[in-house]
Amino acid sequence: RTVSYGKGDVFAYRTFLSPLTGVKQIPESNFIGRSNTVFGVNVKIEVGGQKLLPSFTEGDNSLVVATDSMKNFVQRHLGRYEGATIEGFIQYVAEEFLKKYDHIDTIKIIGEEVPFEETTTTASANGLTRSDLVFKHSRNEKSIAKLELVRGEGTIDIVQQSSGVLDLQLIKVRGNSFVGFIRDEYTTLPEDSNRPLFIYLNIGWEYEDTGDSTGSAPYSYVCAEQVRDIATSIFHELETPSIQYLIYLIGCRVLERFPQLREVSFQSQNHTWDPVVEEIPNSEGKVYTEPRPPYGFQHFTVTKEDLGNSKELSGEINISK
Amino acid sequence: RTVSYGKGDVFAYRTFLSPLTGVKQIPESNFIGRSNTVFGVNVKIEVGGQKLLPSFTEGDNSLVVATDSMKNFVQRHLGRYEGATIEGFIQYVAEEFLKKYDHIDTIKIIGEEVPFEETTTTASANGLTRSDLVFKHSRNEKSIAKLELVRGEGTIDIVQQSSGVLDLQLIKVRGNSFVGFIRDEYTTLPEDSNRPLFIYLNIGWEYEDTGDSTGSAPYSYVCAEQVRDIATSIFHELETPSIQYLIYLIGCRVLERFPQLREVSFQSQNHTWDPVVEEIPNSEGKVYTEPRPPYGFQHFTVTKEDLGNSKELSGEINISK
Amino acid sequence: RTVSYGKGDVFAYRTFLSPLTGVKQIPESNFIGRSNTVFGVNVKIEVGGQKLLPSFTEGDNSLVVATDSMKNFVQRHLGRYEGATIEGFIQYVAEEFLKKYDHIDTIKIIGEEVPFEETTTTASANGLTRSDLVFKHSRNEKSIAKLELVRGEGTIDIVQQSSGVLDLQLIKVRGNSFVGFIRDEYTTLPEDSNRPLFIYLNIGWEYEDTGDSTGSAPYSYVCAEQVRDIATSIFHELETPSIQYLIYLIGCRVLERFPQLREVSFQSQNHTWDPVVEEIPNSEGKVYTEPRPPYGFQHFTVTKEDLGNSKELSGEINISK
Amino acid sequence: RTVSYGKGDVFAYRTFLSPLTGVKQIPESNFIGRSNTVFGVNVKIEVGGQKLLPSFTEGDNSLVVATDSMKNFVQRHLGRYEGATIEGFIQYVAEEFLKKYDHIDTIKIIGEEVPFEETTTTASANGLTRSDLVFKHSRNEKSIAKLELVRGEGTIDIVQQSSGVLDLQLIKVRGNSFVGFIRDEYTTLPEDSNRPLFIYLNIGWEYEDTGDSTGSAPYSYVCAEQVRDIATSIFHELETPSIQYLIYLIGCRVLERFPQLREVSFQSQNHTWDPVVEEIPNSEGKVYTEPRPPYGFQHFTVTKEDLGNSKELSGEINISK
Repeated sequence: RTVSYGKGDVFAYRTFLSPLTGVKQIPESNFIGRSNTVFGVNVKIEVGGQKLLPSFTEGDNSLVVATDSMKNFVQRHLGRYEGATIEGFIQYVAEEFLKKYDHIDTIKIIGEEVPFEETTTTASANGLTRSDLVFKHSRNEKSIAKLELVRGEGTIDIVQQSSGVLDLQLIKVRGNSFVGFIRDEYTTLPEDSNRPLFIYLNIGWEYEDTGDSTGSAPYSYVCAEQVRDIATSIFHELETPSIQYLIYLIGCRVLERFPQLREVSFQSQNHTWDPVVEEIPNSEGKVYTEPRPPYGFQHFTVTKEDLGNSKELSGEINISK
Repeated sequence: RTVSYGKGDVFAYRTFLSPLTGVKQIPESNFIGRSNTVFGVNVKIEVGGQKLLPSFTEGDNSLVVATDSMKNFVQRHLGRYEGATIEGFIQYVAEEFLKKYDHIDTIKIIGEEVPFEETTTTASANGLTRSDLVFKHSRNEKSIAKLELVRGEGTIDIVQQSSGVLDLQLIKVRGNSFVGFIRDEYTTLPEDSNRPLFIYLNIGWEYEDTGDSTGSAPYSYVCAEQVRDIATSIFHELETPSIQYLIYLIGCRVLERFPQLREVSFQSQNHTWDPVVEEIPNSEGKVYTEPRPPYGFQHFTVTKEDLGNSKELSGEINISK
Repeated sequence: RTVSYGKGDVFAYRTFLSPLTGVKQIPESNFIGRSNTVFGVNVKIEVGGQKLLPSFTEGDNSLVVATDSMKNFVQRHLGRYEGATIEGFIQYVAEEFLKKYDHIDTIKIIGEEVPFEETTTTASANGLTRSDLVFKHSRNEKSIAKLELVRGEGTIDIVQQSSGVLDLQLIKVRGNSFVGFIRDEYTTLPEDSNRPLFIYLNIGWEYEDTGDSTGSAPYSYVCAEQVRDIATSIFHELETPSIQYLIYLIGCRVLERFPQLREVSFQSQNHTWDPVVEEIPNSEGKVYTEPRPPYGFQHFTVTKEDLGNSKELSGEINISK
Repeated sequence: RTVSYGKGDVFAYRTFLSPLTGVKQIPESNFIGRSNTVFGVNVKIEVGGQKLLPSFTEGDNSLVVATDSMKNFVQRHLGRYEGATIEGFIQYVAEEFLKKYDHIDTIKIIGEEVPFEETTTTASANGLTRSDLVFKHSRNEKSIAKLELVRGEGTIDIVQQSSGVLDLQLIKVRGNSFVGFIRDEYTTLPEDSNRPLFIYLNIGWEYEDTGDSTGSAPYSYVCAEQVRDIATSIFHELETPSIQYLIYLIGCRVLERFPQLREVSFQSQNHTWDPVVEEIPNSEGKVYTEPRPPYGFQHFTVTKEDLGNSKELSGEINISK
């Protein structure tokens, strides 16, 4: 049965962490690395084990690592971490935690990026340049990493590892249709051959070899920024018949670019606006407004088996303007 | 692999639904039923099935029930629902949906209460009375119900059913300790023999017989309001050594009162304030302030097996003031 | 010009503050006082004065009271406060602050209640009773108090004082119409002679004599809970033709009950649901759903001059069922 | 007295609005214009006038423009708007509204940008380019415009106009001190000669001639993006002794670059992290964590009179690294 506890919203910020360089370049993205001048992460750590049972059933705290101590453990280890990624950091913390506390059997740890973007300054003699001191806190898409470890016989085993990008919100202003769906007595939505399409995307990926996830070999590491750029590129190119098909093709392209991945999974949402003014003289523009609260969503996983099919499709039929 | 889609934030409000009456009375609660004059629910519906695969891999919408139609389906069925509970309503919708669309194999549906509280009026000749027209929208704790159905060979089977109460936030101002936990180089938290304890609680329960969950036999239905009242009562009575032990005892008491339940599960959080002024002349009061963001949490499930132990404990040792 | 600075989100919780007793009873409310076992307040303090100018224009910090120190000042004074209301507390803090720092000329202070509701327990021999230890943190309506002081010639003068209740959300399920408004080419809303009406209310009030606001003479103090209860009572009684008229009548009733007030002001919003199923066999109920984001709002102030008119109206014509 | 009503959260999105081009270039920014392929705005409109009084005091709706109609009015006029800025749009709407409804005397209107950022695509033969179809919804800083009109004798007069940028969140990782402030019995904050400084900024500006605010003469229009870039540039350059001084210098620089402005006002907040690990071997980095909720804030207005002083200061003394 469920027996676990932990600490959430453990915010940790490290200045001047090692930069991430040497990542693979892909056509869809200009991204080349992260300075890590500000590295921000929100950690959730959850530990389990049968030895914790008496803390629940008897109120016996003698084997309880206070969650306040867990917070200290996470934050201090960020000071000791010598890598350059959230995946690497949470793996380091989780392994050290299991080494330190041998009555703990399992650990689930999640690190969610607190993203900072570059800004500009005129400080340099070269005119306007990127600032190496001032950064903008972004509330847009962010990367996430999850790891689950279990103590084995003298070993610490990875049970689950995944990475992802959360909260990407993209609008394509035309070139999207939604037709041919079931029409019956519950259908009030009209078919639409050219709508704007406003989607929210969470994209996750798993590596064939979890060792590639830490970024210690940067060329094998998949950057959330690159996956984001693949998504915008495919969205632009595809005459979109549905979100379902769009995410399928994004997944295929991600797997093409990063063969070190095993699968790519999607949680997408549809937040498309409703039209208000459909005809504007001398303009292809329209006026739209916010939809009501209900949103459609899709959950889908693309695997390497899909890749063969998609290669044909993307080359021959479906992606065109 | 994951192949599903659906609609979230489907808000549906029904006025003058059948009232819920005839529920079992328990010592810890004055709750006797729900008028259902305003019945508010936020539904999330998610459907799956292998026949949906081409909608993803080929962009073929011919078997797609538009999520807009799902929203219509949910809302119109609330007009037809003749029961009195969220559990009953979502089961009705889910079964009807599978009957209507036979290419759909699975359905997960969640109904989250939008709670409304009673208010008072002087309209009656009897002075101040409860209003039967005006209600207050509450943003406090709310009930939730989840159901998962799978199409079998000519049958529709319940795979998972649970009910719960979410977002209950309780403070006990004294009579809570936290001592005896592990002290090492990561420990900075002092022991405390008398702290306020501020907890967030999500409590879930599963029935032995899922048929009891719908409320069609009200005496066997467990009301979230009663579980909430058990929680406050136990919290008051217990000299709390930890949240772990507190939720264990709450779970045992819930199972005692409602033997139709199989298990009770908890997601608790600790948001206890930090002391600022510890000594106030001529007062047992103190001044506290909001803690930093990190919060401790616990996940635990209490089952009927626990009940034997707990009966002894609660009767003899642990709950006293 | 604007020259000020301060501290926001200064949360302060005091246990076992003096209870508020002895308030005036009114027909519309059962409220008789506050135990103040948990007294929670979120303070915003803002100070100004021309002597602060060099801290901006020259970066001279020599007259800067650090906002961290302001936070300490507020929290420690809650430990010294001997009254029973937020109004009294913020006035005490503000006056002490101006006495302590004589280069500060003005102070604006806002105290927003962090509300806690009573819970029940079986601990007593009398069966189920109110707990004096466990309270529920409420996220519903809450009281607020604002005060603005200016240093005069050897005096400290109150420039502005107001109290209020925020975030009250009320639905009346029938007995509301909206007809007779302007119809033109921008009108798409149909007239409706019997709609549910879902409103958000912020209600503020000002005393004739600001000395009455502190609660040191409880009979002259106006409790937010009582104003809330007047609002629900009037809403129930009135066949509502518009929110405008509803808030006018609520304001008049508040001024009738509390002649120590000078005026009552409203910020109301309309969040009425949209109908989905209008006819349900054998039921007066309907199904509604969440509206789109745009909300109507009203700002209005009711003064004593209005009271004469309203007395007649409320007695003779408008409030009936 | 306050007599007004209106509609908030009127979201309106226009595709393919006229682009904004021809803005003045400044050294601190690469910004050259807005494509306006997606133009998103959240409008709040509030109207007033003594003729509205009976709608409150008598429930007489005969002169009530339904707020639903106001929403239609705003959205349809976005379809007719031929300019390129939020300032221009809200002025157009407000003037047309007063022309249409002559019993309305005053109108306050606020337009808040719903920002969309550019994305990239490989669709072009030139490799990776900016997409002209896919945009990212940003939840970071956004521009805002406010306008207040009053009906005069046959005229419509601008009473108040302001523009601004909201919710800019900037961290500077070193080169910030906070020393020399008042130390007394309420002071627990240590002096710090080199802290990170994390600030939230709302910056507003008013034009000498409100006609310049609409962007109809683009060279005289001030873009929020440029003000943002001035802020990051100054922040980088200044050895910051306080937020107070920082915003003063930002304001001076904005007025230098844009002499068409009359004043620049600031609402800043301090959300600086707390240190956790202060020494990391072989690194100038540190580990920090999220502060408690209380935040310091500053309100300040910089006017042209300040400009003389600041020119000297910025040239000679204060901004250096």
